[in-house]
Amino acid sequence: MIYFKNDYSSIAHPLILEKLWECRLEQNVGYGLDEHTFLAQKYIREKIKKPSAIYFLVGGTQTNMVVISSMLRPFEAVICCKTGHIQVHETGAIEGQGHKCIYVDKEDGKLCPKDIDDVLLEHTDCHMVKPKMVYISNATEIGTVYTKEEIKELYEYCREKNLYLYMDGARLASAMAASDVTYEDLGNYTDIFYIGGTKNGGYMGEAVVINRVELAKDFDYCIKHFGAMLAKGFVAAIPFEVLMKDDLYYSIGKKENNCAKILQDGLEKIGVCFMVKSLTNQIFPIFRKEEIKKLEKECSFEVWKEWNRDWVVIRLVTSFSTTEEECERFLKVVEKIYQN
Amino acid sequence: MIYFKNDYSSIAHPLILEKLWECRLEQNVGYGLDEHTFLAQKYIREKIKKPSAIYFLVGGTQTNMVVISSMLRPFEAVICCKTGHIQVHETGAIEGQGHKCIYVDKEDGKLCPKDIDDVLLEHTDCHMVKPKMVYISNATEIGTVYTKEEIKELYEYCREKNLYLYMDGARLASAMAASDVTYEDLGNYTDIFYIGGTKNGGYMGEAVVINRVELAKDFDYCIKHFGAMLAKGFVAAIPFEVLMKDDLYYSIGKKENNCAKILQDGLEKIGVCFMVKSLTNQIFPIFRKEEIKKLEKECSFEVWKEWNRDWVVIRLVTSFSTTEEECERFLKVVEKIYQN
Amino acid sequence: MIYFKNDYSSIAHPLILEKLWECRLEQNVGYGLDEHTFLAQKYIREKIKKPSAIYFLVGGTQTNMVVISSMLRPFEAVICCKTGHIQVHETGAIEGQGHKCIYVDKEDGKLCPKDIDDVLLEHTDCHMVKPKMVYISNATEIGTVYTKEEIKELYEYCREKNLYLYMDGARLASAMAASDVTYEDLGNYTDIFYIGGTKNGGYMGEAVVINRVELAKDFDYCIKHFGAMLAKGFVAAIPFEVLMKDDLYYSIGKKENNCAKILQDGLEKIGVCFMVKSLTNQIFPIFRKEEIKKLEKECSFEVWKEWNRDWVVIRLVTSFSTTEEECERFLKVVEKIYQN
Amino acid sequence: MIYFKNDYSSIAHPLILEKLWECRLEQNVGYGLDEHTFLAQKYIREKIKKPSAIYFLVGGTQTNMVVISSMLRPFEAVICCKTGHIQVHETGAIEGQGHKCIYVDKEDGKLCPKDIDDVLLEHTDCHMVKPKMVYISNATEIGTVYTKEEIKELYEYCREKNLYLYMDGARLASAMAASDVTYEDLGNYTDIFYIGGTKNGGYMGEAVVINRVELAKDFDYCIKHFGAMLAKGFVAAIPFEVLMKDDLYYSIGKKENNCAKILQDGLEKIGVCFMVKSLTNQIFPIFRKEEIKKLEKECSFEVWKEWNRDWVVIRLVTSFSTTEEECERFLKVVEKIYQN
Repeated sequence: MIYFKNDYSSIAHPLILEKLWECRLEQNVGYGLDEHTFLAQKYIREKIKKPSAIYFLVGGTQTNMVVISSMLRPFEAVICCKTGHIQVHETGAIEGQGHKCIYVDKEDGKLCPKDIDDVLLEHTDCHMVKPKMVYISNATEIGTVYTKEEIKELYEYCREKNLYLYMDGARLASAMAASDVTYEDLGNYTDIFYIGGTKNGGYMGEAVVINRVELAKDFDYCIKHFGAMLAKGFVAAIPFEVLMKDDLYYSIGKKENNCAKILQDGLEKIGVCFMVKSLTNQIFPIFRKEEIKKLEKECSFEVWKEWNRDWVVIRLVTSFSTTEEECERFLKVVEKIYQN
Repeated sequence: MIYFKNDYSSIAHPLILEKLWECRLEQNVGYGLDEHTFLAQKYIREKIKKPSAIYFLVGGTQTNMVVISSMLRPFEAVICCKTGHIQVHETGAIEGQGHKCIYVDKEDGKLCPKDIDDVLLEHTDCHMVKPKMVYISNATEIGTVYTKEEIKELYEYCREKNLYLYMDGARLASAMAASDVTYEDLGNYTDIFYIGGTKNGGYMGEAVVINRVELAKDFDYCIKHFGAMLAKGFVAAIPFEVLMKDDLYYSIGKKENNCAKILQDGLEKIGVCFMVKSLTNQIFPIFRKEEIKKLEKECSFEVWKEWNRDWVVIRLVTSFSTTEEECERFLKVVEKIYQN
Repeated sequence: MIYFKNDYSSIAHPLILEKLWECRLEQNVGYGLDEHTFLAQKYIREKIKKPSAIYFLVGGTQTNMVVISSMLRPFEAVICCKTGHIQVHETGAIEGQGHKCIYVDKEDGKLCPKDIDDVLLEHTDCHMVKPKMVYISNATEIGTVYTKEEIKELYEYCREKNLYLYMDGARLASAMAASDVTYEDLGNYTDIFYIGGTKNGGYMGEAVVINRVELAKDFDYCIKHFGAMLAKGFVAAIPFEVLMKDDLYYSIGKKENNCAKILQDGLEKIGVCFMVKSLTNQIFPIFRKEEIKKLEKECSFEVWKEWNRDWVVIRLVTSFSTTEEECERFLKVVEKIYQN
Repeated sequence: MIYFKNDYSSIAHPLILEKLWECRLEQNVGYGLDEHTFLAQKYIREKIKKPSAIYFLVGGTQTNMVVISSMLRPFEAVICCKTGHIQVHETGAIEGQGHKCIYVDKEDGKLCPKDIDDVLLEHTDCHMVKPKMVYISNATEIGTVYTKEEIKELYEYCREKNLYLYMDGARLASAMAASDVTYEDLGNYTDIFYIGGTKNGGYMGEAVVINRVELAKDFDYCIKHFGAMLAKGFVAAIPFEVLMKDDLYYSIGKKENNCAKILQDGLEKIGVCFMVKSLTNQIFPIFRKEEIKKLEKECSFEVWKEWNRDWVVIRLVTSFSTTEEECERFLKVVEKIYQN
């Protein structure tokens, strides 16, 4: 079975597991006041070249919930895409802490100033929620990415309108490897972002980076209040210590994208169409329903949605553990199906 | 430096780390639908001899928050001890999801039917919250434990009054090793309990066991809603797969208690007094303030509270990694201080 | 100035004010356990011919917040129209208590089984909220109404799918007077509905009617928990005692609709177009921007939205205090504008 | 039946009902932007001699919920007395919006800087809630009052510790009439207070006064978000327009206290003991259980609590409608019981 189901199916990058083993005899201070945490924070700050506040949480939904709920007042809302993770796939975690998600329907999963402007024009008095934060994902849920120019423009718009710009980086490694956006840009052109660990080689963990430091006031209280503080904080930091030292994180993104490109290029050559052109580690080819059945015998992937009565979009995801050889094998399988 | 500061300072029991390494090449299904999860659930069900619903969450506060908030209606409250973790040390996580903690001030940190009865008598109409759950910790925050008889009595009382009995087992290994309570008793005499992993050798993780299965309805939705679902669910289950196979969990508790007993007996022989008589892995000796200063040079521990102007209670905690040799060394340090 | 701005601009129907004065020397029991409350409940139960649970709250947003939050579990969501009051005009009150509003974009502001079915098909696992309640407004926010057949069909669909059907009756008097829906139908074909007092002659007050009585369990606790319980409960009940005795409520709806019809018919004769054909007390004519300016000098109304660059939709609302004479005067004003 | 059960049993002061009638033909702007609201605000600002932000809400629990939840961040807590209304009698409304109430057990129901200091010393890190607001009631729930000096001292302490001081004035008329505290003092020595209408002659209504004006930012959004905004805002303002013009409010307090004093002095002369010495409109005499039964035949009052096996504390409350004659009649009843 060739595995393209998702990027969170194997425990962790071997270097991270080795690090765990290496540190097994240590006695660490609890609650994120340990040396691993400090080191991981240092590496990240060096990359973004800013003294941002940095915290290590466990998963993506938790991170979105803690960040958004900590920074908004009760009646304030967050603007996102219709496909945004907070809008669709968090079982109402943001509303659960009291905040409305206002969504905009964008085909490419990306927000621009015009989208937000439209929302602001519709929310003008105290009988409606007050938009206060803009949530974007990079890469988006459908594999697209923002350019540096796009992020900069969004950020400047948000500053002007007194909105916070928050970037969900669950798949940030892949996004950065597919665009001109640098760590420094993320430090300069977002108020808050998170560096996804779970989907980029960590056994768990997301690193929240708060660039607008006044928003970090008492953030540790918030982390605990929302049930997100680990007694063994160092366990959440170690993956980032490994990923951020040198450039393992970025190189995982590069490798994932490279595998995805092999798949995408190969499928195109065979004649397969795509729902969207992706530059990242998620690609969305379209197959006939009967082809899907054959594919499923040899490969593991997710059915994304019906394209029409006869065709279906599937999602293929590459991960740190995907090999080029697996990609070639997959292409062979498709070729064979297409030849019959 | 001899380390008695807490039981969550080293990464994990070596057998757990070995297991992680052993499984590093696997591709697992996400969100807790994997084989490790199923196996860990199976081991636990075999121990409690009940088909209870079992879920693996990350930390104690998160677990308390998810369990309590999932099971209570908005106006319902939870009864606990004044020293209860939810009352004191969760930064309002329970209130944060809307529920009042009603506390009873008990010197030994343990609740009995009479305590709850008093609370019920005071909460009689719709102008007050409605008590619906009883929260106990075993071991308690001050190291005491419940006997089987006590738990049974509490449980029967709760059933009669239509209250849920929920046991926080952050330090359950130590509690079980110090009492006559078996896994089967926990299955029979609580509605919900959790088996603490973080403080008993896991790198993280708490196993929620819902014995009254109707309370488990849609609990997976709740887990996600409160930001507590892991994409890599298997990462939270693996520690329990290791701890619950054979009897590693219980034997860790035994070992911890044994070390604590060496400390306690040794200190008593030297003439040290205690805040409370503990049978578990937390002990609470009382020292003069100037002695504390000397102790701190060679040992790491927590100052619990002022006993009076001149004396101070400290907390010593043993863990899976504590050795008898460390205990003896500590006693020597104290002896030397006392001899001067 | 002729006043069509809204239906909540004058204090109360004279019969209600007379009743207040008449009862001024009474000593009543507090918190909704008084004779006025009992009488108002009795009148309503007689009309719906069911022993439903009935409560008197203060305003519409509060009522929606209390009803929805009391009946849903944390991860459950409510389905509504894009124009629904809870979606647009409650400053996130529903999300504020933890629940997502899932909206459907319907031109006429009305939901049908097909709409809900689409939502259910998209919400299938624990990574998404679980739809549990359907919220409809009758009359809708744009003046349309449900027929008996439509409500029955919706209700039967909801029962089949195990959803609650909740009707917001802020403008129920007008809706009933414009359709074949009777009180009995509301008792039979909704799980919960509220009878709006504020916009139908009361100085305040909405009567919540819970037909599916198991949903009323501990509803008094919920009312208090959400800050909605009045010490002087009788003050909220008295308007309903007056409105529901005989048939004042319905006759106010009739009168409002009649005035609205005079306006609508008259405007049509003059050649004015409408955004939507309304049968109730809200009508939505379309005027040129320069006409609006002239109208505003003599009449008070709300600008609803831009129709296009040159034309604008306004809203005219009739109330219990609107007179036919005012309607004729308004038509004369428009006529004069049109003649120039 | 002589009525001393509470101060919210009759509809409203006749002058308020007259005002309602007088204004019955008006057309007012909605949502608190009307002339009655402006006038009531003006009268209050004149009394406190400060340009404070002023809002009119419906009831006490609602007011506490909106004020506290609007001003605290998620992890922040409010300090109160064990007898505080928010702690005991609001069905968890404060916790329902996410905030812990930390209570201090004071016999007289009053907080002083020392009490708060003790709480602050116990709440020192991010594992516990962060105290941010001090809630006091004046008069307290057991009829005691604060002096100007006490309030000033509390306020200065709170300023120093960066805490908000919030005064619940459900029975403020009676409190002011029993102490040296002026409106100006309330403006100077609280951050927020509310002037209770419901228990001082209004048919409903509490006037929130925010002296520290930065706390009023977007308070209108909060009011709506928590379901507390009235379409007919003028209905909540009119009672204050009447009460605050000239000095009706204060004179009601004087009258109530005078009646309570007649009762208290008279009972003392008969030989009755009291739970607490009250200067306000609530008094707490202690009777034998068998005497209670006789009293209940002719008078309506609340049984407060058991004093011991044989004796019981009752609460007598005077209101704007209590007459001296009723007090004398009550004393006669007691006298007769005592003589037998």
